[in-house]
This record gives sequence, structure tokens and C-alpha cells, in this order.
Amino acid sequence: MQERRQFILTVSCPDTVGLVAAVSGLIASWGGCLDEVNNHADKTTGRFFMRNVIDAESLALGLEEFRAGFVPLARRFQMEFSVRDSSRPKRVALLVSKEEHCLVDLLHRWRTGELPFELPCVLSNHERCREYCDAVGVPFRHVPFSPETKAESFEAVVSLLEQEQVELVVLARFMQILPAWVCERFAGRILNIHHSFLPSFAGSRPYRQAFERGVKLIGATSHFVTAELDAGPIIEQDVMRVDHSHSLADLVRLGRDVEKTVLARALRAVLEERVLIDGNKCIVFR
Amino acid sequence: MQERRQFILTVSCPDTVGLVAAVSGLIASWGGCLDEVNNHADKTTGRFFMRNVIDAESLALGLEEFRAGFVPLARRFQMEFSVRDSSRPKRVALLVSKEEHCLVDLLHRWRTGELPFELPCVLSNHERCREYCDAVGVPFRHVPFSPETKAESFEAVVSLLEQEQVELVVLARFMQILPAWVCERFAGRILNIHHSFLPSFAGSRPYRQAFERGVKLIGATSHFVTAELDAGPIIEQDVMRVDHSHSLADLVRLGRDVEKTVLARALRAVLEERVLIDGNKCIVFR
Amino acid sequence: MQERRQFILTVSCPDTVGLVAAVSGLIASWGGCLDEVNNHADKTTGRFFMRNVIDAESLALGLEEFRAGFVPLARRFQMEFSVRDSSRPKRVALLVSKEEHCLVDLLHRWRTGELPFELPCVLSNHERCREYCDAVGVPFRHVPFSPETKAESFEAVVSLLEQEQVELVVLARFMQILPAWVCERFAGRILNIHHSFLPSFAGSRPYRQAFERGVKLIGATSHFVTAELDAGPIIEQDVMRVDHSHSLADLVRLGRDVEKTVLARALRAVLEERVLIDGNKCIVFR
Amino acid sequence: MQERRQFILTVSCPDTVGLVAAVSGLIASWGGCLDEVNNHADKTTGRFFMRNVIDAESLALGLEEFRAGFVPLARRFQMEFSVRDSSRPKRVALLVSKEEHCLVDLLHRWRTGELPFELPCVLSNHERCREYCDAVGVPFRHVPFSPETKAESFEAVVSLLEQEQVELVVLARFMQILPAWVCERFAGRILNIHHSFLPSFAGSRPYRQAFERGVKLIGATSHFVTAELDAGPIIEQDVMRVDHSHSLADLVRLGRDVEKTVLARALRAVLEERVLIDGNKCIVFR
Repeated sequence: MQERRQFILTVSCPDTVGLVAAVSGLIASWGGCLDEVNNHADKTTGRFFMRNVIDAESLALGLEEFRAGFVPLARRFQMEFSVRDSSRPKRVALLVSKEEHCLVDLLHRWRTGELPFELPCVLSNHERCREYCDAVGVPFRHVPFSPETKAESFEAVVSLLEQEQVELVVLARFMQILPAWVCERFAGRILNIHHSFLPSFAGSRPYRQAFERGVKLIGATSHFVTAELDAGPIIEQDVMRVDHSHSLADLVRLGRDVEKTVLARALRAVLEERVLIDGNKCIVFR
Repeated sequence: MQERRQFILTVSCPDTVGLVAAVSGLIASWGGCLDEVNNHADKTTGRFFMRNVIDAESLALGLEEFRAGFVPLARRFQMEFSVRDSSRPKRVALLVSKEEHCLVDLLHRWRTGELPFELPCVLSNHERCREYCDAVGVPFRHVPFSPETKAESFEAVVSLLEQEQVELVVLARFMQILPAWVCERFAGRILNIHHSFLPSFAGSRPYRQAFERGVKLIGATSHFVTAELDAGPIIEQDVMRVDHSHSLADLVRLGRDVEKTVLARALRAVLEERVLIDGNKCIVFR
Repeated sequence: MQERRQFILTVSCPDTVGLVAAVSGLIASWGGCLDEVNNHADKTTGRFFMRNVIDAESLALGLEEFRAGFVPLARRFQMEFSVRDSSRPKRVALLVSKEEHCLVDLLHRWRTGELPFELPCVLSNHERCREYCDAVGVPFRHVPFSPETKAESFEAVVSLLEQEQVELVVLARFMQILPAWVCERFAGRILNIHHSFLPSFAGSRPYRQAFERGVKLIGATSHFVTAELDAGPIIEQDVMRVDHSHSLADLVRLGRDVEKTVLARALRAVLEERVLIDGNKCIVFR
Repeated sequence: MQERRQFILTVSCPDTVGLVAAVSGLIASWGGCLDEVNNHADKTTGRFFMRNVIDAESLALGLEEFRAGFVPLARRFQMEFSVRDSSRPKRVALLVSKEEHCLVDLLHRWRTGELPFELPCVLSNHERCREYCDAVGVPFRHVPFSPETKAESFEAVVSLLEQEQVELVVLARFMQILPAWVCERFAGRILNIHHSFLPSFAGSRPYRQAFERGVKLIGATSHFVTAELDAGPIIEQDVMRVDHSHSLADLVRLGRDVEKTVLARALRAVLEERVLIDGNKCIVFR
């Protein structure tokens, strides 16, 4: 599926008559063959969202020409749009602290090509995960964090991200709260995995909170990071059943499997340009 | 959502460039506002499927005019198409034997308007469910079945269905195998609920089969009926967890809840024209 | 499974060596055949919980004799215990407001014997559900509620419950907050269904809260009612997947199916004496 | 939970009065503190099954003494029993072919101690997975298989397993059908993961079968291996939702996540002695 070269066009604009016709008409005029089309009209906000996957071989133009050729239509309908070439994978950085299960899972999916992205580096505030990166030849950057030097540490992190031209940041159990300026600098481009079914148990020690509340399902949530902690647009969630016989340690252990799959699914959706941000919600096209 | 009057256009044709543009362009030329658009290209068969939901108020034409106006485009692209007015609900007949749980569930969803359809009659080979129909004022037709008179009984059933101009037949736990000629007469218009996760445990006594095999999940499957028993295109399936402590009677009891929800979801999808048959599979647009 | 007459013994006490031996030894000394045994030791609180299901026919004594014969052992180990005869179903009252789906579901399960309980009456602050009770011959008691007379209305409700010797109260979408004195009077005997995955979206309009937060799963929670709103011990929870295409009305509609099954499962567990309260958590034996 | 040293006693015998009393009485007479007790009476076969987890520190005797002391009781009730020391992990061999996802998953769970077992070696009919074993220092044994030499290859495999005193064999996507004599030699001690929701799609290419049938859920099954292909007692199953938009390659990719978690859960249950074989079914105590 990924082997075929495709252009992926995503569009967001005020809803009106003729949007699909205009976009698909322009693409057809270029001979473009549509592999997938997804649309959503948000009745609350009156905005329209669209994702078009076009067989790149069917088009007689390159990415830059496509972009330039789309501008007049975008201007007419006040569209925000983006178009990507699927053969040019995104540059992604993984940030991790001590818990390694999400990192190990993503590294394996990356290494086998299941998740197609470029991985210029893994960043961490601990040394603990270095060995996993060394084993697969991924640069591991250790940025120490201490309460006093937090501001400098985040400067260093952002500087590394920009140096590596990172397009997407994945917090794969990175246990540091990002300052507002970092959230804004990478708005809509930082993915987090929170180890609870949000909005339940936001903040610290969610499994302990879940254990103490006696819930019958535990969960995990992947969301975009915003300045407000654990409150950004949700991309994917899942749960698993637990009962009274499970200790807190059991919840932590069982939860790891949910965290891994939720984060991997969310990342895949983002890489395939299936996720469009609509205010504080996510549209996730399938 | 259902209150708004909409035209629902479904299309199936050989895949080619410009299909979305042509269809959405025609609709836009009539001022039609698209509420929902779904597409699917079957790479195996090379066929293209489409569902367009159009705000009827935005169109300056009626259903017949729409149909007539669509014919030239359909001819050009060898399209099979159908267009319906959402304010004209389908005429549905429910067929039932002795197990009443699916019938009771559908009657309640029908009565409260959750599932919008016309219900000219319930047919049964037993008297047992009459009271449920009487209670809500739905005509109950008892057609006795015996091994010797099966052929005549099916003639009587079909005659009743045609008399009532039934468009869709729902086998809500109807325990008689339909002869091939009935399957053909209502091809693509008979919905069944089978009380197993097909293709496991086709045929009779699926819960007993499941109990004896020791499966850890039991399920239900809603599919279109074809001449081959329990082998038609699958619309919806679901499962629930069981374990060694469950008796056969427990499986039967637990399974009822899965059967009810699977059948209700499949019926809703069909009523909303979300289900398109693609060979022996179903496309189910969301 | 329910047809066999059984004694169900539940026990809670400080954990120590020899509890299972003592209890099963006493039962064996009476010739009692154990159909099911469940145990749980809460490592946090040091309490031990036990459920024993005994074939009543294998015992040469009646319920009162059993109780009397168990007292010395209970005293020795500081046990709280309860023993019931499965052939004597609990007296349950259903309380409902305007939303009828949980009521209709429970009435059907009660009527068909799927859920074995006595149903002396349905109470409501509205007239709307009277017809469903009339149809199956269950007394419907209308107790009007107004902001000014709330205290008197609750007096009337409690008076009715006590008059009918109700042992268990099920709030099947009863939209009035119970005062603390009612919660205490029926402590551990009032079951609620909340239409969210608690602790998310406690309080009013949970589906609206869920819609606005953009969660990818909606849920329902059945719990025992305590003086603190939506904070009592959780018995059962479940969720279902939703996405951006679902309107608020869709969430409400889809959620009904989760509410019904969660409440029915919780009620079944309570009726079968599978639920033991352990502080603010529930042990739910399977 | 695993840190505490425990004796795990599992028992299977004809059902009769006084079994729990006799076993728990004997354990209590030794001062044994019961951490967990599970029981199941199979009404069909009249057999009784039991699992007792005893705090080893509370006992004044060792494993051999326990065993010897249990024999008279076992003889009296015709019990088959086994008792293990949780601090002595099982010796497990992993067999794998070319697909590495289950192996990589189990290696990580083993390495981090999430799954406590000894791993004397990984066996494979291909070289492909050697690097994963080298990376974590696990001996990798390559046993080439060809159609002509299959018999000798299985002799070599069994010889290696016996040399390494392997107690449990895990087929982590090992794509060779075991001959009957191997199944018998390790009866009840070979775990397989089959990449379908059995009994659907037994045999080869289950995802292709699932794709062609158009099922709406795909699954995986972990079972004990018997001489009849894919027909042994089922330990664990799970499913995930798919739809018409998924290609065969998507099913294969999505299915990997189900396979990994199902196999890991089944293995954990077996390692914790929670799985008792009852004819062609498994009792899986929680």
C-alpha cells in the first residue's frame, strides 16, 4: 500500500456548496486518479475537512507544481491546505524518559518499515534507553534535566529538534511537562501518549489513581500536546478490562500493551495524514 | 440527523479517472450541498463504489428529476446507481420463529424512532411472538411450517411480502432455511442474524458447537442471505468474552445481547444506504 | 443454572491462616457440596473476601439452621457474613425518569426470567414510562418531584420502598440526586447507571461533555450510590468506539446500548451475590 | 507479585464432597497461608479442578516435603496434582520461522522480567531471527528443514529440547506442522499462536482466507498443540475490527499486534499455572 507513490492533499475551509466538485474537478483536470477520498463537515463550526490521496503516477506534475496549481482554488474557498509526497517520509524525533516499552515498540515498527518515517534521533533525559538505540544504530541524545536547569534543557531539546529538521515530535513516555513556548513552537506536531483514558486521571500517577478508584477498565490516550496539561486534541484511545484481583503493579504491566498500540496507531494515522485538527478535537479519517 | 431531508445516492462502476469529479460536479451544478461523501476502490476487482448524501433542501429538483438527470452520467461511466429520499423510509418485514429477543429489540427501536423504517408486518412460523406485536399494534402474520408443506409455506410468505410491498426482509432469528428461489427473488434484500462468529459454527446449534470447542469469545454475524447457507456477504460482526465457568445456557444467554446489537447495527447501516455489496463482501461506509 | 436450589454464603473478615479450611470444613461437615468458590485477599487493607455456592439439596439443614450453625465460626474470625437461598429472589424496585431504554430492557429480562428478581413496583417522577409497566402488569408508582417539594418526594419514595420491603433499588436513569439520608438508609443496596466512563464526565450531561472533549470511546458505569455524586464503588463499566462523524445525538443513541448492557450485567452480578463492597471498590467474583 | 516465593498447587480429580475442605485443611495444618484459590467443577465430565497459591514463607516445609505430604490425600481422592515453586522459573524454548514479531515481543518481555522464565535457546528453521537473539545473548539454534529431511530435522529439534531440559515449547510463528510423535512427547507442553480466530480459518494463509470471506473482525488464537492441526485446547483468543478499506497486507499488519498480545497472555497464564487442560478445553483461572 505504501509502495505506490501518492500525493496526499488535506484541506480545511469554511463549508459551502461545490467544494468536492471543485477539488476533484481540478485533480481530474490533471488526470489525477483518486485512491482515497475522505470528507467531514463539522456542523458545529461550519468548517469542512477533506483528505484526497492521489496516485502520483497518474499526474503529469510534481509536488511544487501541484501546490502552485492548487493556490487559486484555495484562495477562492479560503482553504488551508497541505500536500505531501508519500515517498518522502516525515522526520520524527522520539522523546523518552525511563520507561522503554513504547520506544522499543516504535523502534521495531520503524526498523521493519511497518511505520514509514525518518528517525534522525532519540532524545532522553536519562541514559537508560541508550542501549536500545545503539542496537539499531539510531543516534541517542541525552539531555539531562534537573529542576534548576529545566529551562536550559528545553532550549537544548528544541535546538536539537530544529537542527535535525524534525517535523513531528513523539513523546513516547517522556515524563517532563513541556513549557508553553515549546508547545506553541511545535503546535499540532507533538504527539503524546498518556497512560490513562483521558480525561480520567490526567496528571501524574494515573495507574495509581485508577487503582484507587477501582475502575473496571484501564486505558491509554494519544493526543496532541497543548499548553494545558493532558488536555490537547485526542487522536486515539483504547482500554482493557481489569478486575479486583489486579494489583497496582498488574495495572502498570497490562497498561503497557495498551499504551504501545494506542501510540503506534496514532502515529500511523498522523504519518498517513489522516489526522486533521478541528479546534480541540481531531478528525481521524480511515 | 435523520430529521433533515436528504437524497442518498449510491453508485457502483468500473474504476476510472474523474468519477468523483463528474458526480460531485453534476450535484454542484444543481446547487446540491454534500452532507457526506464516501468512496471505495476495490483494487482486486477494479470496481469503484460511492455514497453521496445530499441536503435535499439545497436542490431545486425532486427525486424523479434527480434520477433522470443522473442517467446520462451513469451511462457514460457504466454506473449502477440508486437514489433515495431519506424522508421515505423503507418498508421492512421482520421474520421470527420462537426466540423473541431480536424482535423485541427491533420493535422497541422502531417504535421509538431510533430505527426509521415502515413495518407493515411481522411474519412467523410460530404463534409465540404474537403478543409482542399486538402490544405495539403491528400486524402479526402466522404462516405455519411443517416438513411436508414447506414449499407452500414459503409461497405464502413471499406472497405476503410482495402484497405488502416489502423492500427489505429481516430474519430476526427465523429458524427456517430459505429456498434458493426466495434468496434470488430478494437478492441483496434479506438480512440475517447468525448466532456465531462466521465462518465458525455455521449451520445449526452454533452455541453448542462453540461450547464444545471451548472458544474464549462467542459472537454473532449479520449477513445478506444467499442460496448457500450462512455464506452470504457479511455486514457486521461482534464478539464477547466467555470462559470455562460459563455453561452452554450461559453462552446462549450472553449471546443474545451480541445478536441484538449486531442485527440492529447492520439494519441501521442498510437503512442508511451505507452497505454496498461487492461480490461476496460488503462495503460498509461510516 | 438458576434452577438448582443453592445457598450462597458471602464472607468478609480480617485475613488470616486457615479461613478457607475452616469455612469449607464446616460446610463439608454438613455434607455440603460446593458448586462455586471464590476468594480475594485485599493486600492493601488486609481483609479477606469469600463467596461459596453450596448445592442446597446436599445439605441436611435449612437456611436458618445454616445461619445459626455458622455464627460460632464467624465470631471466631470476626466475619461479617450473609447467606441466601437462591430460590428466594430479591425484591427489587426500579426507579426511572423519562429515558425508558434501561427500564424496557430490564423489564424484558425480568419478564423472560433471564434476570431472576421480584418486582413489586416501578417508581418514577414522570408519567412517561407508565405504559411499559401496564403492558407487563407491574405496578407503576408516580411520585411527582418539584424543586420545592423534593424533600417530601424522597420521603414518599422511601416510604413506598419500605412498604414494599424492597431489598435492592435500581436507578435505571433516575435523574434526581438522592439526599445523603437516603443513600445511608440503603447503603450498598442502591445501584445506579451513569452514562459515562467514570470518573470522566461525572455530573450532568455526560454525552455533551464527551462530545465537546472529542473522546474516541464513550462508556457507561454502574456503581453503588453513596452520598458523594457519581463517586460510589464501581461494579461494571464498558465502552464503545465513536469518531468525529458522530453527532451529539449519535453519542446519546449509541450510548443507550452500552448503558443497558452495563446495568443488566451489574444487576445480574449483584443478584447472584457476586459483588462484595471493599471500601470504595467492588470485588466482582466471576 | 512475582517477588514473593509461592508454592502453586494444581489439582484435577473426580468431583465429590469435601475436596476444598480436605485440601485447604491440609494446607492450614501446615500453617500455609493461601494467597489465591481457584476452583472449577466441570458439570459435563464430573471432574473438579483446583489451583491454590500458598505463601511459601508461611510453610515450614520444602517442595519435596510438600509433595510427599500431599500424596495420601491425592490417593484418597484420585487426584492428579502438581506443585511448583514460583522462584524456580520454567525452562522455555521459543521456535520461530521467518516472521519475527512474536519472538521480538517475547524476548523483550523476557528480558525485562515481565514474563519470568528461563530461556535456554531459540530454535529456527531459518537464519533470519539470529540477530535478535544475538543482541540479547540468547543461544540461537538453526535447524534447517527441507521436505526430504523433515523427519531428521524434528529428531534434531527434539534432541535439542531434551538436552536443554525444556519444560515448555512456544511456537512463536513456527511454520512447520509438528508430527504426531512430537505432539505426544510434549503433550500439554507445546503452545502455538495461530493467526486466526479459530476454528475459523484453520490451516494455511488464514489472513487471505479472512480477506476473501470479508469478515469484519480478525483474530488470533493461542492453543496447546495436538496431533490434529489447529484443533488443540484453546487458551486465549482476541480479535480486532477491520473493514472493507483494509487490504490483505493491512490485515497481516494489524493481525501482528493481536498475535503478539494473545501469545504473551497465554504464555503468562501457563507460566503462572493458571491453565488446566480439561479434555479438549482449557480452564484458565484468573
